[in-house]
Amino acid sequence: MSTIHTRLSLALLGAALSSAALTASAQTAPAVPPVPKSRSMQELLDGSKPGDWRTLDPARTLYMDFAAGRVVIELAPDFAPAHVANIRALAKGRYWDGLSINRSQDNFVVQWGDPAETEAARKPLPKGAKAKLPAEFTRPLKNLSFTRLPDVDGWASEVGFSSGFPIGLDRSEGGIAWLAHCYGMVGAGRDIAADSSTGAELYVVTGQSPRQLDRNITTVGRVVQGIELLSVLPRGTGALGFYEKPEQRLTIRSIRIAADLKPAERLKLQVLRTDTPLFEALVEARRNRRDDFYKRPAGHIDLCNVPLPVRTAQEPAAKPKR
Amino acid sequence: MSTIHTRLSLALLGAALSSAALTASAQTAPAVPPVPKSRSMQELLDGSKPGDWRTLDPARTLYMDFAAGRVVIELAPDFAPAHVANIRALAKGRYWDGLSINRSQDNFVVQWGDPAETEAARKPLPKGAKAKLPAEFTRPLKNLSFTRLPDVDGWASEVGFSSGFPIGLDRSEGGIAWLAHCYGMVGAGRDIAADSSTGAELYVVTGQSPRQLDRNITTVGRVVQGIELLSVLPRGTGALGFYEKPEQRLTIRSIRIAADLKPAERLKLQVLRTDTPLFEALVEARRNRRDDFYKRPAGHIDLCNVPLPVRTAQEPAAKPKR
Repeated sequence: MSTIHTRLSLALLGAALSSAALTASAQTAPAVPPVPKSRSMQELLDGSKPGDWRTLDPARTLYMDFAAGRVVIELAPDFAPAHVANIRALAKGRYWDGLSINRSQDNFVVQWGDPAETEAARKPLPKGAKAKLPAEFTRPLKNLSFTRLPDVDGWASEVGFSSGFPIGLDRSEGGIAWLAHCYGMVGAGRDIAADSSTGAELYVVTGQSPRQLDRNITTVGRVVQGIELLSVLPRGTGALGFYEKPEQRLTIRSIRIAADLKPAERLKLQVLRTDTPLFEALVEARRNRRDDFYKRPAGHIDLCNVPLPVRTAQEPAAKPKR
Repeated sequence: MSTIHTRLSLALLGAALSSAALTASAQTAPAVPPVPKSRSMQELLDGSKPGDWRTLDPARTLYMDFAAGRVVIELAPDFAPAHVANIRALAKGRYWDGLSINRSQDNFVVQWGDPAETEAARKPLPKGAKAKLPAEFTRPLKNLSFTRLPDVDGWASEVGFSSGFPIGLDRSEGGIAWLAHCYGMVGAGRDIAADSSTGAELYVVTGQSPRQLDRNITTVGRVVQGIELLSVLPRGTGALGFYEKPEQRLTIRSIRIAADLKPAERLKLQVLRTDTPLFEALVEARRNRRDDFYKRPAGHIDLCNVPLPVRTAQEPAAKPKR
């Protein structure tokens, strides 16, 4: 690897959520440690403690399986309880198994569900799934955890994180909060009517954050692992990135709630908590990068540029086998 | 196509630069035109006049050809004159022909050039190309066209467009401007030293705008067509998205300056001017979407969310053949 590659790369480290790059590893201090200008994100993660991480709740975790691998989505029942309940019922009823990715629009979204063109031709919803849900565009501020990002944002009067999700909020409108449409966020497609989504038709953001959708559509969660299986899908050549031929659609092998699988079949994923001093230090390390590459720290970070590290939980020391 | 798809899609139209969707077409008014709440982007484009568009200058246009198709890049000599001059010399000397895409990092960049790991193993620069260039991170404001975007931006005190490029500027630092790292922008990879880029190693942004790179690296242009050939490339599994095996790299067939091709071989592309009342109206149509889908216009647009429409120039009426 050439120096130019490496150096540019180093500078850019962590702009994407490479789980490999962001995995915390054992801290190995040199014999005479140099005094760094400030700690990098990786150094901060290397120094993290178990309490800086939270394990994904299997009841809130969706596995979307393809022949090529798995996409892991963390659901947000605190923001979209009715949609998340429906998604659980759809997954339990194996609704998506055999359906497909039907749309990939460059710098925008990848979308999946039933490709049938008419309501009549569509797969019926399984038992327990509702055909009608309320719009869940915002929720009350009350009882919501919130770590504010001090940086200015044009889309919301305040932005920050709530249990790992990027959110916007408005205290003037009776106190409401909503999930922000950042890269990797998952939303529920709908018709013209605000309450026309069921969660059966989902999309993930794969481009510059389309924050104009905030408060206009129900957002149900975010991809925490495997987004590169979706973001690289060939762009559809039909209007708005829909695939024009059935054979262009990627088949979904299955979508399941992790809690519906046996414990041994679940991934042991942890995500960095967003309500800790470590997270605050990490954001500052990204807001003002002080490594040798950056000549001018930005002094700012956008809500959607904040990395949300993911790792595989460290196994406890193996017990002797019987 | 299901209604849910269509409606979500309609609402999201134009978030990506689908040249098909954004191509201006002949205005066909219904017999009794309804009174729209406001004009959509497509309606505005349909009503555009020839003077609202500019034809790409062949001397500033780069064609990057692959077996699968062509990526068109508009260069920005007004911001990076030395780098653009070098890129012209590199293209003329066929430097990139047979080299490759070496890196694809999710939600970040796709990068190309010579994959050789050592300076000694690298392809020599062709005649006319310099091995040393000045850093071109910013330029003086003087003599720069600028259409200001009134929307707040956290990365720069003012943002807007200059001849079709998204830029930031600072009047307090003696009056400087710089190209903003939006989706599709092309930059020159460098080493630690600010003046270590040559333009031989280039990258394109394929994720959430990494604006922290603004003023830290020389940006040389933007992709105006064909980015979907690059954005879908499998993400590299090496550190920072580098491909680990040579066979994973996509070979570049050729990179040429359009002016070096015969006129008949050049694409007739036009881009929407950014210094017109039409453009201002288009930005407002995107800042506050008033179609039936959007229940709450955002009242804001981010610099990197503004679409920059591209079309193939309309041919003059065909002359009778001899």
